[in-house]
Amino acid sequence: MSAYQNVHDHFREINDLQHVLAITNWDEASMMPVGGGQVRGQALSALQVVIHGLKTDPKIADWLEAAVTEDLDNWQSANLREIKRVYREATCMPADLVARLEQATTAAEQAWRQYRIDNNWADMEPLLTEVVNLSRKEAAVRAEATGLSKYDALLDTYEPNVNSARVDEVFGDLKSFLPGFIEAVIEKQSSETLLPVSGDFSIAKQRELGMAVMESLGFDFDHGRLDVSHHPFCGGVPDDVRITTRYQTDTFVTSLMGVIHETGHAMYEQGLPVGWRDQPVGRALSMATHESQSLLMEMQVARTKQFLQFLTPIAQRIFLGGLSNDPAWNVENLHRLYTKVKRSYIRVDADEATYPLHVILRYELEKDLIEGSLEVRQLPDAWDAKMQEYFDLSTAGNFHDGCMQDVHWPSGLFGYFPTYTLGAMTAAQLFSAAMGQVDDLLGSISRGDFTPLLSWLRTEVHGKGKYLNYDELMLAATGDTLDAGYFKSHLEARYLQ
Amino acid sequence: MSAYQNVHDHFREINDLQHVLAITNWDEASMMPVGGGQVRGQALSALQVVIHGLKTDPKIADWLEAAVTEDLDNWQSANLREIKRVYREATCMPADLVARLEQATTAAEQAWRQYRIDNNWADMEPLLTEVVNLSRKEAAVRAEATGLSKYDALLDTYEPNVNSARVDEVFGDLKSFLPGFIEAVIEKQSSETLLPVSGDFSIAKQRELGMAVMESLGFDFDHGRLDVSHHPFCGGVPDDVRITTRYQTDTFVTSLMGVIHETGHAMYEQGLPVGWRDQPVGRALSMATHESQSLLMEMQVARTKQFLQFLTPIAQRIFLGGLSNDPAWNVENLHRLYTKVKRSYIRVDADEATYPLHVILRYELEKDLIEGSLEVRQLPDAWDAKMQEYFDLSTAGNFHDGCMQDVHWPSGLFGYFPTYTLGAMTAAQLFSAAMGQVDDLLGSISRGDFTPLLSWLRTEVHGKGKYLNYDELMLAATGDTLDAGYFKSHLEARYLQ
Repeated sequence: MSAYQNVHDHFREINDLQHVLAITNWDEASMMPVGGGQVRGQALSALQVVIHGLKTDPKIADWLEAAVTEDLDNWQSANLREIKRVYREATCMPADLVARLEQATTAAEQAWRQYRIDNNWADMEPLLTEVVNLSRKEAAVRAEATGLSKYDALLDTYEPNVNSARVDEVFGDLKSFLPGFIEAVIEKQSSETLLPVSGDFSIAKQRELGMAVMESLGFDFDHGRLDVSHHPFCGGVPDDVRITTRYQTDTFVTSLMGVIHETGHAMYEQGLPVGWRDQPVGRALSMATHESQSLLMEMQVARTKQFLQFLTPIAQRIFLGGLSNDPAWNVENLHRLYTKVKRSYIRVDADEATYPLHVILRYELEKDLIEGSLEVRQLPDAWDAKMQEYFDLSTAGNFHDGCMQDVHWPSGLFGYFPTYTLGAMTAAQLFSAAMGQVDDLLGSISRGDFTPLLSWLRTEVHGKGKYLNYDELMLAATGDTLDAGYFKSHLEARYLQ
Repeated sequence: MSAYQNVHDHFREINDLQHVLAITNWDEASMMPVGGGQVRGQALSALQVVIHGLKTDPKIADWLEAAVTEDLDNWQSANLREIKRVYREATCMPADLVARLEQATTAAEQAWRQYRIDNNWADMEPLLTEVVNLSRKEAAVRAEATGLSKYDALLDTYEPNVNSARVDEVFGDLKSFLPGFIEAVIEKQSSETLLPVSGDFSIAKQRELGMAVMESLGFDFDHGRLDVSHHPFCGGVPDDVRITTRYQTDTFVTSLMGVIHETGHAMYEQGLPVGWRDQPVGRALSMATHESQSLLMEMQVARTKQFLQFLTPIAQRIFLGGLSNDPAWNVENLHRLYTKVKRSYIRVDADEATYPLHVILRYELEKDLIEGSLEVRQLPDAWDAKMQEYFDLSTAGNFHDGCMQDVHWPSGLFGYFPTYTLGAMTAAQLFSAAMGQVDDLLGSISRGDFTPLLSWLRTEVHGKGKYLNYDELMLAATGDTLDAGYFKSHLEARYLQ
């Protein structure tokens, strides 16, 4: 057997165990009763250690060395490149640190669910401190191995082509553009009438609409599910994608947009190259690319009037029991509802104009947490100060809507937040390219036909896996590397014209 | 670190990975969309291989040898005995046979779900043949390692204290007792009027009743769930027990009794000794002991008039919207419904009098399949012949209600069926002992107070794990080793007096 085939089979085994890990993680967030938490933390940790052991098997280095002399096609070469990356990222991490991180993040994540509800920062703080301390260790270890700064070394695990200098530049641009833009939009929208929308928004009805929209977008229910969790996410494996949402019964907007967002993630997973899914090269390119797929669906597609022309009669039939002439339920009013800009506390409920400021706030704080210039005990005050600066809102004493609102930090996902806004910009640029390349794209959307859009995404993004790097993919799909101008143009066109 | 501590920690890691396996298996049966099946089979197989590797780690033999000279308490010594057994059972199996069995049984089990619905024996046969061929290999390997016959070597993995000679003796006894008994009961019941019971048996209502009864029986929903699967089962781990049922909307009996049965299994798991659950000695004693707990709840408890005094008003409120004087809904009629004896095709729906004959039929056939005197292609005819002999019913051409009705053989569980009837006899003997030792046991059941019964079971069975062997446990709890007389007396008292 060739060295390439050996390393290929080895990573197929890793993929199999990651499958089990993904399903068990999904279960932990969506199915597990609370009393199962402690033993689950141990079990996940044990499996992580096994996977870590396989990723750091010394045979991999030998196989990699031998495989470069073998006759490989382009995908195989790209796969070797990605395997090298996985091997490097894993070997620099000591097994006991992996296990301690898994246990600490599982404990913090499980506790967070209740503590957030209780606005209980006092009991959250020590758990989060433990996660931050271990994440700093991880950052130091990865910085040593890559030559990057501590924070960049974490960012690099989510977004290989981007460092914090590039992020600072783009985010600096947005920080100067957004405040004035938001002010102008709020001023413009203040004269618009927004009629409250009412109907039977029971969970069963919302789920029915969510499933109908998922199916229209192209989600394959033979290879996935929709469930409920505290924090919506997309998990599972490409052949069995598990998305979750959460329901409020006073509005269907939150859940529906959550479902469309996660469906965007899911379509990416379901569209990964079939023959390469069990190998590193066949996985999603990066977190920003993943987020671009969810935001392309949620922001670029689902908040157009054309999408609402498709959605409105379906929603009326489900929530009102039939078609209605109620002016609250017409496309214009729903569009105003879906494009309302408002400064608010909660990132996941934020509109696309204020959203980047939520991300910038987190990015600045987490960089300081990891680099060591901010301690967890100072976090609530630091959060409050930035909320006042960017949003003119205070979160003093309100941890629930402040620094405890996201699961990311309890989960140890430092370096992840900036990919949301990189994703938003990527989405704007990709959708702009699709509009130029696909005939009558908005028309097909208004008719509920998402096949032309999905075909384009399958070809240009989903089916590529990690074959191209981020810059190569953007250049091939859009004729340009990432340019924040597309995002700003999109915002101006939607909100100020 | 002592040798004992080393082997203890090693088996804790195995327990952690078995936790992940249990949850992923549960997911496969209750949550997974059909398109996820192929990659799931590979993933489960890979995890099985990892667990098998840990169970056969050569260090275990060294630790076992060194640990016997160490100062151990009784539970630790019992744990070593059980670890030795796990090690012996695993080391005799080659890793590739474990993997091939896992893949073949996953494929057969997944296919069985549709093929059974379609009465499609032609496509089932080759998959089952593959499973039988591999199970014969397993039996030969285990026979070689233990000195037992092929079938006994498989039976031994489920029921350590019992061999087929002992089973033949007990089953021979039942084969001579049951036909005349069943005839007499059917004759007696033919003159009784059985009023049909109707109400709103929607799935939501049945689930509500099932959950209410589970809670009363003592099921801890902080450490478990109730879901739906094709074939009801009890899975998960002691701290997070997952039971399933299936619903028919023309009757609530099937689902409710299924729920009570699986709750009996679940109570055993939830009652395992807390400090030993992560070790072999802390697991359930044997399959017959497990089945004794489910049948004790389903047959000994839930079909008494006292239990129905507790259940009837709750069921009336849920299915009728309030209390009712409808004679179909009184305790006497429901009791007749729950104790109706009828020769029928389906084991899982059979009453307790005819059930043992279903088991004996399977036991005789699977022994022949494993020993090689029966081939899979001959199975439908052999099944039909025995159905005609024991039940006066024919399954010619009716695979759905014949040899394809159970998941066990596609799942490769040869040697498992006899434990059902051993469990029924054990349940009768344990309940008889509890009746003698617990004051006013039936009275407390009629008041919906299951604490006295549960306390007795926790002390005598659940909390013992594998500390005692089966004969020791029965002697301590009932003052007697297994004696079929308790089961026969129970049947005669309930059905002919």
